[in-house]
Amino acid sequence: MATGKTDFPVANIRRYLEPGLIVLVSSAWRGKTNIMTMGWHTVMEFSPSLVGCMISGGNHSFSLIRRSGECVINVPTTALTGKVVGIGNCSGTTVDKFKKFKLTAEPAQEVNAPLIRECYANFECKLKDDALVDRYNFFIFEVVKAHVARRPKYPQTLHYTGDGMFMVSGKIISRRSQFKPEML
Amino acid sequence: MATGKTDFPVANIRRYLEPGLIVLVSSAWRGKTNIMTMGWHTVMEFSPSLVGCMISGGNHSFSLIRRSGECVINVPTTALTGKVVGIGNCSGTTVDKFKKFKLTAEPAQEVNAPLIRECYANFECKLKDDALVDRYNFFIFEVVKAHVARRPKYPQTLHYTGDGMFMVSGKIISRRSQFKPEML
Repeated sequence: MATGKTDFPVANIRRYLEPGLIVLVSSAWRGKTNIMTMGWHTVMEFSPSLVGCMISGGNHSFSLIRRSGECVINVPTTALTGKVVGIGNCSGTTVDKFKKFKLTAEPAQEVNAPLIRECYANFECKLKDDALVDRYNFFIFEVVKAHVARRPKYPQTLHYTGDGMFMVSGKIISRRSQFKPEML
Repeated sequence: MATGKTDFPVANIRRYLEPGLIVLVSSAWRGKTNIMTMGWHTVMEFSPSLVGCMISGGNHSFSLIRRSGECVINVPTTALTGKVVGIGNCSGTTVDKFKKFKLTAEPAQEVNAPLIRECYANFECKLKDDALVDRYNFFIFEVVKAHVARRPKYPQTLHYTGDGMFMVSGKIISRRSQFKPEML
């Protein structure tokens, strides 16, 4: 499976490295809300709970989040695939995305940005460090409150691989017995 | 599926947000090599091709990568699951991981760190920005050369969810027709 490798364009490696979870980022500023689809993010620390996110300056959400210093990271499942794609293919400058995509904005507890009720999980975030925002559009958020659905234990999530193709989460396997307790 | 949400410990949100790809990072410094398992990374830019990676200061690989300013990000498939777990549960300070896990170190083209032949893809990386290394152990690399196996088109990859459990990549679905060309 690892034979016959070819040179591959470095600008296209997202095809392989990216398939992290696709999330919906909701934000609010002065009475206006927005939602964006995001695929470029990473967990950075357990406690404080830090998440690094790439939010392009070209996105309408960028200014709402830059100004409010807050957002909610919402985890959609495959039940929302059509909405996820639609949200990623229009701009909040001209569209009220909660209205257009029939999603429910619920009040969060720690931030002014709304939760998306239909998503499996909602993570309320406060901007922790903007040191790399100007250079890379890279925001470091602290997750200050998390809401997760009780079921299913492993939701069917979407993972974007570029070119309009998504990988859907597959089976869960345990290798727990091979881990040192401190490495779990 | 999104009803009955409960409060969830913010320190444990990796369970949901993390399932990006598990990769093996190979490195070299003054004749010594090492391999580490990594799950916290994000694509940051297409061109230059940038990838941000969390490499804890407690890892033996941290000093090799910090000193050499180079690494290779290798993409393992489920064929290597046992080795991936083993590599993540021992330290390069006492173990020659290429030898112990019977992996083949191949010369890279642009960096001194070795490729892992058995992996599906290998991305040669040079350190681009260490501004957040001291504060967060966050390295920004530029991928300067990429090698990808010709087959299969969609490899079966591993995605860690914490607690010794991995999600295996599932089916591929296309929503290409719903994308604006510039959003693909």
